[in-house]
Amino acid sequence: MTLAANPSAELARPALSRVPVTQLAGVCADRGVPDLAQRLLELDRWIAGELRDFDRALATVPRGVRAVQAAAHHLLDLGGKHLRPMCVALAAKCGTGFDDRARQLAIAVELVHTATLLHDDVVDVADTRRGQPSARVLYGNAASIFAGDWLLVEALRRIRATGDLALLDGMLGIIEEMILAESLQLERRGHIDGDVADYVRVAEGKTAALFRWAMGAGARAGGCAPAVVAALESYGADLGVGFQIVDDCLDFAGDVAVTGKALYTDLREGKLTLPLLIALPRDRELVALVAAAIADDDASIEEQTRRHLAIGHRIAATGALAEARAEAQARISRAIAALAVLPEGPARAALTTVAEATATREK
Amino acid sequence: MTLAANPSAELARPALSRVPVTQLAGVCADRGVPDLAQRLLELDRWIAGELRDFDRALATVPRGVRAVQAAAHHLLDLGGKHLRPMCVALAAKCGTGFDDRARQLAIAVELVHTATLLHDDVVDVADTRRGQPSARVLYGNAASIFAGDWLLVEALRRIRATGDLALLDGMLGIIEEMILAESLQLERRGHIDGDVADYVRVAEGKTAALFRWAMGAGARAGGCAPAVVAALESYGADLGVGFQIVDDCLDFAGDVAVTGKALYTDLREGKLTLPLLIALPRDRELVALVAAAIADDDASIEEQTRRHLAIGHRIAATGALAEARAEAQARISRAIAALAVLPEGPARAALTTVAEATATREK
Repeated sequence: MTLAANPSAELARPALSRVPVTQLAGVCADRGVPDLAQRLLELDRWIAGELRDFDRALATVPRGVRAVQAAAHHLLDLGGKHLRPMCVALAAKCGTGFDDRARQLAIAVELVHTATLLHDDVVDVADTRRGQPSARVLYGNAASIFAGDWLLVEALRRIRATGDLALLDGMLGIIEEMILAESLQLERRGHIDGDVADYVRVAEGKTAALFRWAMGAGARAGGCAPAVVAALESYGADLGVGFQIVDDCLDFAGDVAVTGKALYTDLREGKLTLPLLIALPRDRELVALVAAAIADDDASIEEQTRRHLAIGHRIAATGALAEARAEAQARISRAIAALAVLPEGPARAALTTVAEATATREK
Repeated sequence: MTLAANPSAELARPALSRVPVTQLAGVCADRGVPDLAQRLLELDRWIAGELRDFDRALATVPRGVRAVQAAAHHLLDLGGKHLRPMCVALAAKCGTGFDDRARQLAIAVELVHTATLLHDDVVDVADTRRGQPSARVLYGNAASIFAGDWLLVEALRRIRATGDLALLDGMLGIIEEMILAESLQLERRGHIDGDVADYVRVAEGKTAALFRWAMGAGARAGGCAPAVVAALESYGADLGVGFQIVDDCLDFAGDVAVTGKALYTDLREGKLTLPLLIALPRDRELVALVAAAIADDDASIEEQTRRHLAIGHRIAATGALAEARAEAQARISRAIAALAVLPEGPARAALTTVAEATATREK
């Protein structure tokens, strides 16, 4: 079934990409950051047309008739935040704008991101994603693995079709970075003696690399000068690490009603993230609690929840969450500083707003 | 750890690629096909240098320090038959020869093949591969999934580096064909009402597509004329389907001491292959036996073995194995016919020998 045969699939979909921006604006207003809330609404207006074009273009990814394609589209259709495509669009608008070539690159980066989620959910035995049953629950682990492979191929074909082979080489290198970071994370899983350097390495490979590529791809498609491309890539890399740290903080202290994600998923998967790595050397009892939480799969759900809450409270009590947020803020400040090569104007303002919203995000 | 740091890895490895040729020659001599046995030994002499060069080049795939890389190299180091690289080498020798560019393409095709085996073993929950514990047993499912992803990226980078973008486009299309064929096979799994057309579609996508690419890649690297490239691709496609049918026949009737593979693995995985699809409409009792064998996971090993043997005997009794072998022979004859565009000479003789050996192979 192609999209042409099923136009309702597009019509039924709201301009998903715009949701987080307006939601973020609401959160910022609630939290007494009215200036940022105002700027997010302006950003939304400034980029809305491009994101609508992106949604339309994303809907042209062939649907096919096979289960792997259905598994891939199950996740694609749930939308997500589309942050990486937004990076491509904003970077392109630093130059000549978000044309068809840039749109294809934006689709490619979203497909690669979606591929990693499909594989991650198999690896993490995750039952839900984006508030719905994960593809592996609906279509099986096998179909989810092949669905991820299929999206990677679809992404690479689109990049190749733009004719910018440096971007193709870059993406192949970045997929490798992502795989090696996933491997490092797997190897560290359940090790209570994890260190911050490995954590940062994982965040750089798993998350920041793709943000870096998205910014560089948009900038190149927009015809930006090499110095601007490099600056925007640097912005993407720092934004990506900042984004990951905030994500990991929200896993301990997010508002489930806002994030839509269960808490303590990293801990349940044996992943020691930055807040925990900062807190552990400060609280000897926390070490024992975390070791027990990681080791004991037989504990009742109630007992696990009790332990997780205790861990969350102890982490917060050490000041580690605030410190991790500060580290994220430092990365994000560096990202904003990299924008200095850009002239003052709406593109630079938009990128600054995105970075600031990332630092303060609750979702 | 790079190979330079561990030269013994290369020294410890025999010229693995040559093993099947000489083994095949022995089998042919035993079975009273002395002419083919003689020609296989000539083929071995004619291609030995190229295959040694290939082994040496394959050993340069970076080893790295991560578990995913170890998982990938575990399988690569076990060698396998290297049939697809041999196709690249033989096709290249139809033109100007097996130079460095052709060697990189041969490595790429072996890496893609190995990637699919890593993913297949996760999907099929396979415990052994090439007579050893599978990578997923040694390194886990997660590392095996990412190891497959990593090898795909390594392969694509090598193809890209040759500068022949048509081959890169071709490989991206072929990886997609392979994924969609795997998906079709998954969807048909356990369905007793499978049809031959779907079986052929799976064999074409899962196996023949990569043989086709290997032949085309070697021919292009060897500077062959377009008509020769097309003929060799056609040879590869038919050889691939023939190879797969023979493989599936051996799963019912192979000599474990020769193949090194357990029998009835397809049946255990719920895969209905050609011999079974031909036999089922001819034997009503077989339908019930196969349905029970597929459905009942609780039967004892002894009971399962008894059932499998009964199924094997019934299939042979319908004449289906002989008929499937004849279908393989028909494909292989067509492959040989495609070679008519080549001048008489050692390259054409070698490709004819490979095809004939594929039809008669016992391993």
